[in-house]
Amino acid sequence: MNIKFSKNIEELTGTATREFLKLAYEPDIITLSGGLPSSDSFPLEEIKHISKLVLDEFGTKALQYTITEGYEPLRHQIAERMNRKNKTNVSKDEILLTCGSQQGLDFSGRVFIDSGDVIICESPTYTGAINAFDVYNPTFVEIPTDENGMIMEELERVLETTDNVKMIYVIPDFQNPTGVRWSIERRIKFMEIINKYEIPVIEDNPYSELNFTGEVYPSLKSMDEKGLVIFLGTFSKILCPGYRIGWVCAPEEILKKYIYVKQRADLQSSTIAPIEISKFIELYDLDAHIESVNELYKKRKDIMIKTMKEEFPPEVKYTNPDGGLFLWIELPENLKATELIKDCLKEKVAYMSGDSFFPNGGKLNYIRLNFSSNPEDKIIEGIKKIGKVLREHIK
Amino acid sequence: MNIKFSKNIEELTGTATREFLKLAYEPDIITLSGGLPSSDSFPLEEIKHISKLVLDEFGTKALQYTITEGYEPLRHQIAERMNRKNKTNVSKDEILLTCGSQQGLDFSGRVFIDSGDVIICESPTYTGAINAFDVYNPTFVEIPTDENGMIMEELERVLETTDNVKMIYVIPDFQNPTGVRWSIERRIKFMEIINKYEIPVIEDNPYSELNFTGEVYPSLKSMDEKGLVIFLGTFSKILCPGYRIGWVCAPEEILKKYIYVKQRADLQSSTIAPIEISKFIELYDLDAHIESVNELYKKRKDIMIKTMKEEFPPEVKYTNPDGGLFLWIELPENLKATELIKDCLKEKVAYMSGDSFFPNGGKLNYIRLNFSSNPEDKIIEGIKKIGKVLREHIK
Repeated sequence: MNIKFSKNIEELTGTATREFLKLAYEPDIITLSGGLPSSDSFPLEEIKHISKLVLDEFGTKALQYTITEGYEPLRHQIAERMNRKNKTNVSKDEILLTCGSQQGLDFSGRVFIDSGDVIICESPTYTGAINAFDVYNPTFVEIPTDENGMIMEELERVLETTDNVKMIYVIPDFQNPTGVRWSIERRIKFMEIINKYEIPVIEDNPYSELNFTGEVYPSLKSMDEKGLVIFLGTFSKILCPGYRIGWVCAPEEILKKYIYVKQRADLQSSTIAPIEISKFIELYDLDAHIESVNELYKKRKDIMIKTMKEEFPPEVKYTNPDGGLFLWIELPENLKATELIKDCLKEKVAYMSGDSFFPNGGKLNYIRLNFSSNPEDKIIEGIKKIGKVLREHIK
Repeated sequence: MNIKFSKNIEELTGTATREFLKLAYEPDIITLSGGLPSSDSFPLEEIKHISKLVLDEFGTKALQYTITEGYEPLRHQIAERMNRKNKTNVSKDEILLTCGSQQGLDFSGRVFIDSGDVIICESPTYTGAINAFDVYNPTFVEIPTDENGMIMEELERVLETTDNVKMIYVIPDFQNPTGVRWSIERRIKFMEIINKYEIPVIEDNPYSELNFTGEVYPSLKSMDEKGLVIFLGTFSKILCPGYRIGWVCAPEEILKKYIYVKQRADLQSSTIAPIEISKFIELYDLDAHIESVNELYKKRKDIMIKTMKEEFPPEVKYTNPDGGLFLWIELPENLKATELIKDCLKEKVAYMSGDSFFPNGGKLNYIRLNFSSNPEDKIIEGIKKIGKVLREHIK
C-alpha cells in the first residue's frame, strides 16, 4: 500500500517535547527534561468543590455545545486579569478561548504564514512554536539574545534588509528555554521598531505570572498602539494544564480570523472546563494561589542553582532566572548535549538538549533544565548525576 | 493598518453551522436549524457522580498533562465498542483522541490534501467537513446520492476518468444532512471499488449508534482489507458534546501522521474529560443510555414527519430517516431556501438552508431540519410555521 500524504506531512515526525514527555512516565528516571508544572501545586480540593458546584448550578448546559469564542464570563475575567497583571486595556471581545496556548501557536501559523514567508524569532526560541509554524513552511530568521532579551540592533538590521517578514514571534517573560526576561528598555525599543515596520507580533506569554521578584514589567501588548500584538495566554501554568484552556487576545479584526479558523479546526473548546475555571476565579484567590506556586518554584530553582554551583565544572555557564519553569546551560563549544544525554540516561537523569530550540539548527552545546516539576531531593540528586557526567567530559 | 494574512485565510468567513448556532441562543425562535443533541438526554446525575469519583481517585493526575494519544483505558474501551458495534477488529493503538470529530476532519485535511488535489464526497455532504477541507484548497467532486447512499456507477466513472484523487469523504450512516443510510450492497460495492483504486477513505461516523431500527449495518472500516479506511467517531452525539471528545481510528502508519499533527496543533485533548467518559462506560450502561436517546429521537422524528405530512404542500419531498439527527427536504426547483428563510424567521422558526451542503454550490431548493433538539410541541409548532410559509409560496 502506498498512501500519499500531503507534502507538508510526508516528512513529519514526533516533536522533541512530546517524545521527551514519555520519559516522565518511566518511574526510575529523574526527568529534568519536561515542562510540567508541579502537580503538588494544583488546588485539588477547590477544584473538587467547583466541579460539583458547576454541574449543580449549570446542569446540562455545561455539557452542551456552546459558542466558538467560549464562555463569556471567563473571557471577561481573563481581560480583567490581563489589564491588571499585564497592564493591557482589552475587553472580552478581544479574547478567544483555545485548547492550550499551543493551539494559539498553530492558529497563528495558519492565520499568517504562507510557504516561504519569513518569521523572525529569538535565538533560541520555544521548540513547540517552531514545530507549530514549521508545518506552514516559513523561513525562520533567528535574532541573537542576551541576558536582557532580543538584541534590538540585530532586529533592526534584519528588518531593514529583509522583504517578506510576515510575523515576529517572541516570549518576553521568562522565556522557554532560557528563563530570560526582556528588560523594559528592550520592550520599549522593540515596540518602536514594530510600529515603524508594522509587522504582526505574537507575544507568547505563558510565564509572566510565574514571577519570583514581585516586580512586574509591562507586556508588549500594553504598549501596542497600532493593534499589531497578538497575546497568547494559558491557565496551564497558573492553575493546571489538564483542562487544556488557553486564550488568544488580539484586536477584533485579527481575532475574527482566529475564530473562523477555530470554527473549522474543532468548533469550540470544552464547554465545562471554562465554566469551572471561571468559578475558581470567582470563589477563590487565583493571585494568592499563584504566589504560593511561585514560592515553591523559587525554592526549587534556588536549590538547583546552588547544586549546580557545587557540582558543575566552572567551564559550564547557565542562566539564573527570576521566574518561569526553565534555566539554560551553555557547555563548552566542543561538547554535544545530544551525545552527553546518553551518559546521563545511563545515570537515570534526563535533560532536554538545546538543539531543538534553534529553528535553523547547528547549535549542539546547550541544555534546557526544568526546575518546577521535581521535589528538592530529586533536583539535588539529578544535578549531581549531570555534574558527574559533565566532570567526566570536561577535564 | 494593513495586516497581511495568509492566502488561505484572507477570504475566510464564519461557517454556516456556527452562525446558525447563534440563533439557538435567541429564546423566542424555534430552531430546527441546529445540530444539537437533546440536553434532556444527557445523564446529568451519573456525570455528577463520576466527576467527583475521578477527582477522588485520580487526584492531581487528572489535571496534569498526559500523552498526545490520550487516556489509554478509554482508547481500549473505544476499540472494544467499535468492534462490537461497528463490526471492526481494531485495538487501542489505532485510536487517537481528538477535540470532537471536527478535529478529526481538520486533521484529515492536513494529512492528505495539497492545493489542487481532488476530494470525492457525497452530494450533498456535511458542511463542517467542506469547511474543514476547503482551507487546504482541494477540488471537490460530488457524487450523486439516492435513498441507498452514494451511487456507485458514478463513483466508478469519476475514478476511471480523474487522476489526482487524494481521498474520499463519506458518511454512510444516517448522513448529515439527508439522514440516509447506505445499503449493505452499496457498502460492499464501495469497498470493492476502493480496494481497486487504493484511495484513502474518511468514514465519518458520528451517527451509526443513533439507530432507530435495531438493525446494524457493517461499517466500511469493518470491510477494509487494505488499511485504507480512517474512521472518525465522537461522544458528542451518544453522551454529550461539552467534553469535546472524539477519536480517529486508523491503521498505525496512518494514525502516526495524525498524532504528529496533534502534537503541533494542541499537544493533547483534555486530560480529565476522557477519564470521566471512561468511568461512565465502566460504571454505567452506555448502550442502554443510547437506547433511551434513540427512543426520544425516534418519537421526535415521527412527530415531525407526521406534522409535515399534514402541513406541507404535496410538491415538497423529504427523507424519513431511520436514525441520526436530521432530515432533508427538497423544494420545487423554482423555490430558494435561502429566500424562504427570511419569511420563516419572521414567523420565528429557523431551518438550515441546504446550499452550504454542496461544496460546488448551485443548489438552492433544499432544507435541512434537525429533529433531536426540540420537544414535541415545539416541533409541531415549528413545522406548522414552515408549512404556512411553504403554502404561501406554492400555489
